[in-house]
Amino acid sequence: MTGVLQALRTYPRFVTIEGGEGAGKTTVLRALCAALAAAGEDVVCTREPGGTPLAELIRGLLLDPGHEPARPETELLLMFAARAQHVQETIVPALERGAWVISDRFTDSSYAYQGGGRGIDPARIAALELAFVGIAPALTLLLDLGVAQGRARARTRDAFPDRIEAEQDAFFERVRSAFLARAEAEPLRIRVVDATRSADLVAADAVQALLASREAA
Amino acid sequence: MTGVLQALRTYPRFVTIEGGEGAGKTTVLRALCAALAAAGEDVVCTREPGGTPLAELIRGLLLDPGHEPARPETELLLMFAARAQHVQETIVPALERGAWVISDRFTDSSYAYQGGGRGIDPARIAALELAFVGIAPALTLLLDLGVAQGRARARTRDAFPDRIEAEQDAFFERVRSAFLARAEAEPLRIRVVDATRSADLVAADAVQALLASREAA
Repeated sequence: MTGVLQALRTYPRFVTIEGGEGAGKTTVLRALCAALAAAGEDVVCTREPGGTPLAELIRGLLLDPGHEPARPETELLLMFAARAQHVQETIVPALERGAWVISDRFTDSSYAYQGGGRGIDPARIAALELAFVGIAPALTLLLDLGVAQGRARARTRDAFPDRIEAEQDAFFERVRSAFLARAEAEPLRIRVVDATRSADLVAADAVQALLASREAA
Repeated sequence: MTGVLQALRTYPRFVTIEGGEGAGKTTVLRALCAALAAAGEDVVCTREPGGTPLAELIRGLLLDPGHEPARPETELLLMFAARAQHVQETIVPALERGAWVISDRFTDSSYAYQGGGRGIDPARIAALELAFVGIAPALTLLLDLGVAQGRARARTRDAFPDRIEAEQDAFFERVRSAFLARAEAEPLRIRVVDATRSADLVAADAVQALLASREAA
């Protein structure tokens, strides 16, 4: 793309949690934020799609199963609209004042869901990332578990699946493969965490990984 | 951008109406649709942002003055999310079956409002247009009038201005300049219509321009 950033800026205190349905991302998010707060750090816990009032309204459009389905490209652009707002309103201001930012999902989810899941060419996603996101986390915890196990957990939790949760198993298998391929391509940033264990064990593991990375930050 | 369209496809029966606030776009839209229907043509009349149920919900987010303001990039991506849905769900299916499509606003408005008005580099808009729109009208009627006159008309009509109508005059001057610059750059596609006259005269002019272009289509 012309006239835009040519590389992403990595912030050492920006951490993201990724993974499929039922992997325990929310439990891990809470544990990481509690551990950093207990260590006296300024920490902002957030999520995608969402993280600002307007971005949460966009989330509502994305996940509401009630209206006309979004085309894959529409879904992708809505995700990046919410992300552009989230980055500019919430994430970068916090990082620039020296806070930690822990986000439940970020751009890796677009590569996994809209790329792997919906079949959009990753080059198109990369162009949007460079032009409208511009930043990357220093550490990403990818909570990995089999699709059947994750969906069974998610079903226990959600009586009414949202529009994406209502997809078929084959969709989630493509999502998982895309996540794992990204972890293989970026082993220094993305740490794969075995999420087949109990949420508490997974969270303890994640806290350890974060505290280790904190030494470097 | 990699792996995407390298040029826009122009459809001879795709016509757009552009211009600032209070230029009479809705009156012209109705007149064009009525003239084509009277001539026995299949015609789809539509508008942006909007034109599908989901795109109309995105329109609501864009124009609602009540919530957190969208950043310029967020506004741009929301506009293109709505447009991607509109093109794929409404416009291209109609054009492919041989119908005329008349749209109140299309991509030129993004160059004028988010480019000229909000200051986003037109190259970033062009990249989105190539990657996620892919089509262009054969004829665009640009209803042009001074900002003060247009805003006075719009105020008479709208008791409660939407989020974009609430901008300052300087914003609308930049929007008008950007529209006129596009007309100068693409004189074969964009016809500037003097919109200082009464709406009925403007509409009669527009119908003539359309019928002339119809000979060629």
